[in-house]
Amino acid sequence: MTIRPYERMTHYYETDRMGVIHHSNYLRFFEEARVDLLGQLGFSYAKMEELGVQMPVLESQCAYKKSVGFDERIRVQVALCEYTGLRVTLRYRLERAATGETCATGETRHCFVSGNTFRPLRLPRAYPEIDRVFAALAEG
Amino acid sequence: MTIRPYERMTHYYETDRMGVIHHSNYLRFFEEARVDLLGQLGFSYAKMEELGVQMPVLESQCAYKKSVGFDERIRVQVALCEYTGLRVTLRYRLERAATGETCATGETRHCFVSGNTFRPLRLPRAYPEIDRVFAALAEG
Amino acid sequence: MTIRPYERMTHYYETDRMGVIHHSNYLRFFEEARVDLLGQLGFSYAKMEELGVQMPVLESQCAYKKSVGFDERIRVQVALCEYTGLRVTLRYRLERAATGETCATGETRHCFVSGNTFRPLRLPRAYPEIDRVFAALAEG
Amino acid sequence: MTIRPYERMTHYYETDRMGVIHHSNYLRFFEEARVDLLGQLGFSYAKMEELGVQMPVLESQCAYKKSVGFDERIRVQVALCEYTGLRVTLRYRLERAATGETCATGETRHCFVSGNTFRPLRLPRAYPEIDRVFAALAEG
Repeated sequence: MTIRPYERMTHYYETDRMGVIHHSNYLRFFEEARVDLLGQLGFSYAKMEELGVQMPVLESQCAYKKSVGFDERIRVQVALCEYTGLRVTLRYRLERAATGETCATGETRHCFVSGNTFRPLRLPRAYPEIDRVFAALAEG
Repeated sequence: MTIRPYERMTHYYETDRMGVIHHSNYLRFFEEARVDLLGQLGFSYAKMEELGVQMPVLESQCAYKKSVGFDERIRVQVALCEYTGLRVTLRYRLERAATGETCATGETRHCFVSGNTFRPLRLPRAYPEIDRVFAALAEG
Repeated sequence: MTIRPYERMTHYYETDRMGVIHHSNYLRFFEEARVDLLGQLGFSYAKMEELGVQMPVLESQCAYKKSVGFDERIRVQVALCEYTGLRVTLRYRLERAATGETCATGETRHCFVSGNTFRPLRLPRAYPEIDRVFAALAEG
Repeated sequence: MTIRPYERMTHYYETDRMGVIHHSNYLRFFEEARVDLLGQLGFSYAKMEELGVQMPVLESQCAYKKSVGFDERIRVQVALCEYTGLRVTLRYRLERAATGETCATGETRHCFVSGNTFRPLRLPRAYPEIDRVFAALAEG
């Protein structure tokens, strides 16, 4: 199965007075790409939450290499770095779609918690059908 | 009882590439001022939600008169326009604290709904202690 | 020429603790749809700003009819209400793409100002090529 | 000179449907605290930009330890890690003001660029008065 990178235009309200996309929005782009990826894997984040699983961010990191302006098409590639059943680390590359140049790279690390108790979940035992999605992604 | 207007500095990430605060943020300033007002009345919005009452926005309106820039102190005055037990309309005036000039005026109209069922609530019957807060505000 | 409505998925970070899209984001959706509309008319907002024209919001209004949640496809239709050469009023209808039900309606009123002096511009004289875009939209 | 930590309440619109402050906002809190720190040092970020110096973020990192909810008072402490005249690294600790518990820690790395040319600036040569502020902060 081929994963399509996530693409969209940048918005006016995402710029700041420096004239470029505010750096905090990159974490939002990564989230959009992460949600899109899960959707492509046939397992929407919304469905995951309905089943009672949340995936809070434990750590985020972003390196800003080239600024991105208003009304530019961005493309975000997401790859799974590590998956333990308890935690997952995703890596992102954001590029300007017009040129392919890398504008930012980043990482987010997540755990899985119960939406009710906020207790950590071990996916292979608690949610084998979600575990399989991440395990498959980890392999390929 | 005297109500203090709500004040704070504007933030860098609230500006856009026009160099001024993005217009969508004014609705957020109004919300901050609304929450602050309820707090001053001894009835925090967080507490209200814990009791099972939510106050969704039915309508918003804002007139932008003067732009506000980064690192400016803004002051928001909130007044209750109308309160029916079922609905409440609040009016806002946002001024530049340094000069007192009016930069924006606005209005938000809200209903009250149950946090569980999302059904409309009639405060005087369902939550007399919250009703009293709004009724007192309506009078004075 | 047919104008396509603007569509996109809602994002996780656009929700609030009520579980639905925060009301301030609707002004952002309207902006996205407005920018998209100008692009379809062959006159991108970015290009307009490069030519020295800005289109600040003088007034915004939004009526929230049905809440929109995370990971829902929204569709925004934009229509020009009034265009005087000095000012333009746009009207918006936001619907849930899955069902077509109207979730919000709104309006924004804009003037045109010089990007350098922030002085009001009369488009027919100052920028006839931009005037033509709005005039054509006003007619049809 | 004593530096006061930066404090403020969290806002409703900063929460997401998980019921807590969205992780992207922490980078915004760090920015607010950074701007506040410069202000306390008698050198406002706005003034710095007027002089033609911008301080874009090259890298950001945040570790989320405890979630923060709506209407909580947060306190952000900022410390300078490293300053070379060309680059500066700041470190942040965000705590719940009510309890003092650390909710997040983070770092941002910045360079200095000319607001006109976006070329890197070497502060000691180009802006000795700004250099002195960072150098003093680095020492103590």
